[in-house]
Amino acid sequence: MSELAPVLFFEQYDSELTQAERSAVAVARNFCADELADVAALAYLRNEPFDQQVISRWGELGFFGLQVETAQGGMGGSFLCKIRVAQEMARHGFAMAFCLNNMQGMATRVSRHGTPRQKEAFLANLMQGRWVGAPAMSEPQGGSDLSKLSCRATRVEGGWVINGSKAWVTNGVIVDLITLLARVPDEEGADIASFLVRVDGPTAVRSEILSSGARSFRLGRIDFRDHFVPDWALLYPPGQAFARSLESINAARVHVAAMCVASLYSAFTIALRYCGERVAFGKPLTGHQGLRWSLADVAMKMEAANSLVFRAASRVQRGQDVTMLAAQAKTLAVEVAVEGVQACMQAMGAIGASAEFPLSMHASELRMAAYADGTSEMLRDRAGKSLAKSYLDS
Amino acid sequence: MSELAPVLFFEQYDSELTQAERSAVAVARNFCADELADVAALAYLRNEPFDQQVISRWGELGFFGLQVETAQGGMGGSFLCKIRVAQEMARHGFAMAFCLNNMQGMATRVSRHGTPRQKEAFLANLMQGRWVGAPAMSEPQGGSDLSKLSCRATRVEGGWVINGSKAWVTNGVIVDLITLLARVPDEEGADIASFLVRVDGPTAVRSEILSSGARSFRLGRIDFRDHFVPDWALLYPPGQAFARSLESINAARVHVAAMCVASLYSAFTIALRYCGERVAFGKPLTGHQGLRWSLADVAMKMEAANSLVFRAASRVQRGQDVTMLAAQAKTLAVEVAVEGVQACMQAMGAIGASAEFPLSMHASELRMAAYADGTSEMLRDRAGKSLAKSYLDS
Amino acid sequence: MSELAPVLFFEQYDSELTQAERSAVAVARNFCADELADVAALAYLRNEPFDQQVISRWGELGFFGLQVETAQGGMGGSFLCKIRVAQEMARHGFAMAFCLNNMQGMATRVSRHGTPRQKEAFLANLMQGRWVGAPAMSEPQGGSDLSKLSCRATRVEGGWVINGSKAWVTNGVIVDLITLLARVPDEEGADIASFLVRVDGPTAVRSEILSSGARSFRLGRIDFRDHFVPDWALLYPPGQAFARSLESINAARVHVAAMCVASLYSAFTIALRYCGERVAFGKPLTGHQGLRWSLADVAMKMEAANSLVFRAASRVQRGQDVTMLAAQAKTLAVEVAVEGVQACMQAMGAIGASAEFPLSMHASELRMAAYADGTSEMLRDRAGKSLAKSYLDS
Amino acid sequence: MSELAPVLFFEQYDSELTQAERSAVAVARNFCADELADVAALAYLRNEPFDQQVISRWGELGFFGLQVETAQGGMGGSFLCKIRVAQEMARHGFAMAFCLNNMQGMATRVSRHGTPRQKEAFLANLMQGRWVGAPAMSEPQGGSDLSKLSCRATRVEGGWVINGSKAWVTNGVIVDLITLLARVPDEEGADIASFLVRVDGPTAVRSEILSSGARSFRLGRIDFRDHFVPDWALLYPPGQAFARSLESINAARVHVAAMCVASLYSAFTIALRYCGERVAFGKPLTGHQGLRWSLADVAMKMEAANSLVFRAASRVQRGQDVTMLAAQAKTLAVEVAVEGVQACMQAMGAIGASAEFPLSMHASELRMAAYADGTSEMLRDRAGKSLAKSYLDS
Repeated sequence: MSELAPVLFFEQYDSELTQAERSAVAVARNFCADELADVAALAYLRNEPFDQQVISRWGELGFFGLQVETAQGGMGGSFLCKIRVAQEMARHGFAMAFCLNNMQGMATRVSRHGTPRQKEAFLANLMQGRWVGAPAMSEPQGGSDLSKLSCRATRVEGGWVINGSKAWVTNGVIVDLITLLARVPDEEGADIASFLVRVDGPTAVRSEILSSGARSFRLGRIDFRDHFVPDWALLYPPGQAFARSLESINAARVHVAAMCVASLYSAFTIALRYCGERVAFGKPLTGHQGLRWSLADVAMKMEAANSLVFRAASRVQRGQDVTMLAAQAKTLAVEVAVEGVQACMQAMGAIGASAEFPLSMHASELRMAAYADGTSEMLRDRAGKSLAKSYLDS
Repeated sequence: MSELAPVLFFEQYDSELTQAERSAVAVARNFCADELADVAALAYLRNEPFDQQVISRWGELGFFGLQVETAQGGMGGSFLCKIRVAQEMARHGFAMAFCLNNMQGMATRVSRHGTPRQKEAFLANLMQGRWVGAPAMSEPQGGSDLSKLSCRATRVEGGWVINGSKAWVTNGVIVDLITLLARVPDEEGADIASFLVRVDGPTAVRSEILSSGARSFRLGRIDFRDHFVPDWALLYPPGQAFARSLESINAARVHVAAMCVASLYSAFTIALRYCGERVAFGKPLTGHQGLRWSLADVAMKMEAANSLVFRAASRVQRGQDVTMLAAQAKTLAVEVAVEGVQACMQAMGAIGASAEFPLSMHASELRMAAYADGTSEMLRDRAGKSLAKSYLDS
Repeated sequence: MSELAPVLFFEQYDSELTQAERSAVAVARNFCADELADVAALAYLRNEPFDQQVISRWGELGFFGLQVETAQGGMGGSFLCKIRVAQEMARHGFAMAFCLNNMQGMATRVSRHGTPRQKEAFLANLMQGRWVGAPAMSEPQGGSDLSKLSCRATRVEGGWVINGSKAWVTNGVIVDLITLLARVPDEEGADIASFLVRVDGPTAVRSEILSSGARSFRLGRIDFRDHFVPDWALLYPPGQAFARSLESINAARVHVAAMCVASLYSAFTIALRYCGERVAFGKPLTGHQGLRWSLADVAMKMEAANSLVFRAASRVQRGQDVTMLAAQAKTLAVEVAVEGVQACMQAMGAIGASAEFPLSMHASELRMAAYADGTSEMLRDRAGKSLAKSYLDS
Repeated sequence: MSELAPVLFFEQYDSELTQAERSAVAVARNFCADELADVAALAYLRNEPFDQQVISRWGELGFFGLQVETAQGGMGGSFLCKIRVAQEMARHGFAMAFCLNNMQGMATRVSRHGTPRQKEAFLANLMQGRWVGAPAMSEPQGGSDLSKLSCRATRVEGGWVINGSKAWVTNGVIVDLITLLARVPDEEGADIASFLVRVDGPTAVRSEILSSGARSFRLGRIDFRDHFVPDWALLYPPGQAFARSLESINAARVHVAAMCVASLYSAFTIALRYCGERVAFGKPLTGHQGLRWSLADVAMKMEAANSLVFRAASRVQRGQDVTMLAAQAKTLAVEVAVEGVQACMQAMGAIGASAEFPLSMHASELRMAAYADGTSEMLRDRAGKSLAKSYLDS
């Protein structure tokens, strides 16, 4: 297996990994280039979700346990390691990378916050990829406005029953286990709790939220009608669930941002290579100054976003506050990636948008990145409200 | 049938149409809204080309003869009328609009430049949509660099035989008749001629150039091997073909630009309506100032592009030179439309990219608009070289 | 005197002028090129306001009466004529153009809305440029938020006394006569009236609001302490003043927008000429594709803004509603002009920012255009609130 | 003296400084805030160069010797320390910062590359700020195209005589000592050498290149006519001069970029503070979401540029190759700073462009940053040509 060669674009991240982590990244890189790339491309071409077999293969490599402690059978990898592995996936397809990461995050969450019984029931399945896990927060009506949360859990003998709907669930079409945020009405008013909920049986119905060109997200809606959840499945009790559900949101934003720049990096290098080979009007496309400047501009903005993402990521790694930088990094990375892929397709000519290259896949999938873990509007607003705190204390 | 209601966005164009033309636009508008819209959306959803039945329906309405003189059985419509009809189509799908317009342009070309025999053979079929016609200029290797033209026509008894390949042919997968640009080697060196070529039999092989998300263009490659063309099928003789093939290029650019702004207009009004209804954090999305400003910016740039397009179109209508304005209008309209649709999808949230709305279709199809009738790079270069002539004569 | 040569950039406007108007524009153009240009440049160089002598020279040419009816001694020019004259000025300096136009607007207002006594007292002086007139609406604290209007007029024998301050008054350092908006407290609550107020004597104190690089606006603050205004100086009575003060605001926005694009046009042609002559690395700067594309992009956006401005202007000319288009045109014209001048300075190299060329003057002065007659933020907000009305009625 | 408080914006840089360096930065910060700020603002207001007395004060603090080894009497500071000191200056005026840094660079160059005799003659004067030093490379005709270098040094008894002109020399109006690049014609063809040249006497005539609004750069042209230079003043001999003159160019670009983001940081915090206090329509300006988002966008892009600049700077610090990143960082930092200051002025309203705040000064001075040490066009081109090398080796 080839070693991790130094690449300007990833150099900052890689220089902070342990030797073991660097090896893991190399494994991921090779597997993604050799297997995931084709799976993602074919799925896009057919306008279908990616082949599920990849999930178990990824599980065999142990990557769902990337952040699970070694004592629990995981890799015990750092946040920067997780980021780099996600980037290797995202080079070949943002949607697939997002889905696999989402599952990895679920395993991590259960390993860190689950009760012994929950771990026993779920962790091995999640780590091996036998079960697909995902968080379920958004709802059809309320979107990400949690004050409108309408899903509710009612106390019954031995547990709760869930009624309501969740939407925009990653892998929602095939998900087996979700962390579900629901209102728990009680005598003292309603509060919010979080449950580990099996999605099975006729009381939990999954349906696809169809996004043509981005079906590999397998976005789904799940409708619950009197869906039973046992007592022991409570993950975060009322009064804690909301805050704890959000405690890793900044890290999640940085990690989405890191995947965005990696997808763009892939599109950019494809465009650069093609434009260096394709001849028009007597010289390679990159021999035409205007076009060369366009590509130089893409690279410049890509590196700026990359530098901001790394800066945020290294703060997460060190346990520092990253609220402002995470919001900035995610908003910018999405924007730069969406525009950059368009610019790359433009530079290549019509063939850049054809099925011969994965750029239109990147374009379609990166669009969805703009909504994950906080829309750009929400992040801009949060950042806007914290500007004084971040910049005027000096 | 409803009359053409005055709409700010189209008002400039409509005010210069005759009463008959306004009625024709109204017919087109209703048909497109009632029938084309669903056909385009369904095709995109299935990642298939649009249902061919629409072609004959459009022919029944007479629109392939829109610019053919009434004496030849056409509508005798003006350029602005053609533009407006194309815009009504483009509201529901740029690719389908482009294909149907392309066919309309073929009928016009034959009616204007064809010999009596050519008209007899082809015009009725083209006007009724029984035959699909398209120009074929680009080649797999040379792209739009005509100095690299490699398709050649060799003199044989009673005609020519064609050898070579054409690429990026609109409707190329189903095309019946093309205007083909080919080298005609003779004793005095090679020159270029244009032929009306039937695409039939085993000597002309069509294949799809697959562009996922934009299959309604039915982009095709056609490979000719000793494909016979009779004497009488010569359209433009050597020495004239190149110039004549380009003589309507400025008008074509304006008309692509006009369709781009119409597609954006459609995406914008959908986003505006949705954001006016969807409630988040206690008020409609448009009640949030930041988002409202985003939409206002889309509208502002859209109207600027629209105004520039109209200005170019009205100069075409009046027979004035439009080289600079056509290049500017097309480049800008594509750019504004591509960015504008992204902004609209962003404003709506994830649902804006879902199959519930046609915005991701517009996004995919408008990308291809950037390459049609001159890439933005080519237009920028041409415009750049003419700046002094256009702006320094004062 | 040279005739008005057809120029692509101004062609739309010029084609709608009468022969007499075209001659007036030609007079303005020659005078501006021959005299105003140097006056504006010298003032900027010295960081001083422009030489006041120009005011009387402009008055001699009759341009302060451009829109005053011929029966009252004016030119009786149309709105498009006013626009074109303003553009000829703005080519050589936005600030000076703005000041002179502001005076022209004052003469027009008095001629249209003044009482016979007001006209007798003020009109000739305003038309000949002996008196400097300007509207005074903004205040130091309230900015353009008229709900915060604090200037007040108190009833006294034979008139009113004014107390309060006005700020950001164009020509405020030398202004002789203003239309002043003030609260008129009465038994039924306070309302707002408008007065024609002489700025003279110790009760009205003018001071400069210093804007380095833009002193030709002569922006001033005026503080009134018990400043007497006679009965007959009431222009708009309580209950009407607010609305009437705003009734020409859309036209004013279009006219500022028209000046912005004209200033940019000037900067652009200077840059284009220079870059066509200056040789670097073996060819003219415009021979370098990347730089040529930059200039082509400036031209493209400039023409789009120009087309939008013209469209709005022609609607004003025809008496049609222009609220949305005026807001869009002004916001875009400022944005395109500010960015375009920067791009032109960039293309020329350091010399483009030196005193050898007027581009840094344009840059400084156009900045202030962003605040005149509605900031971009205010316009964006107004436009945003009217989007549904303008675009969803179809 | 206050300690260096942790500030998000500068945190990356500061964390890599030694304790002594952090103290030096704190000294610089206090001095700049207490003294330089007013000097720069007043100069801009008067459209004059900044008061020269600041130069000796800066020399007294030892900052011209910041990078000179302690053994030679300097501070022995690192590159990141130099960057941070330059940023503290640039917060209060880019031009003044640039001039003082330029002098600092001259002292460093002489201390590192000068002969013992050269050091003896010049170093103390340069370090104390008694003499103003600057490099002189550009020429009036050739700009930065060194193939057009026309200044020439002819061998005479005991030295050379210089003939020709240099332009765009920083501090050129008052410069005492320059490093001059000149052709040295000899029997084997002409080559280029570099000299340390006293600018004195009637054979070296200085004149200002006037840039209104940016006079604090004191940009000058120097015309030499038979100007004598002694033998020992040769700095880099023929064959080495060109390469050695460029060997620190990447570091210089990073350092200009670092100053640009610092100037923007200053403008941004001023705007943020003002908009948090100024009330309009019932709430602070930052209470209006649209405006808040504008400021959040400025901050986002500023931090991205800042992160890229830091990344480049830390590579310089570590002695790593930084060609691509320096070109990207400088191009982006200038672009983001120029646009960001405009956006800040826009957000504040007209007062943001008035003399009450230094933003229009920043706008004028940052414009010149675009030309220093490689124009954006040149950098884009260089970057464009190296893309494959930097990004396709993976």
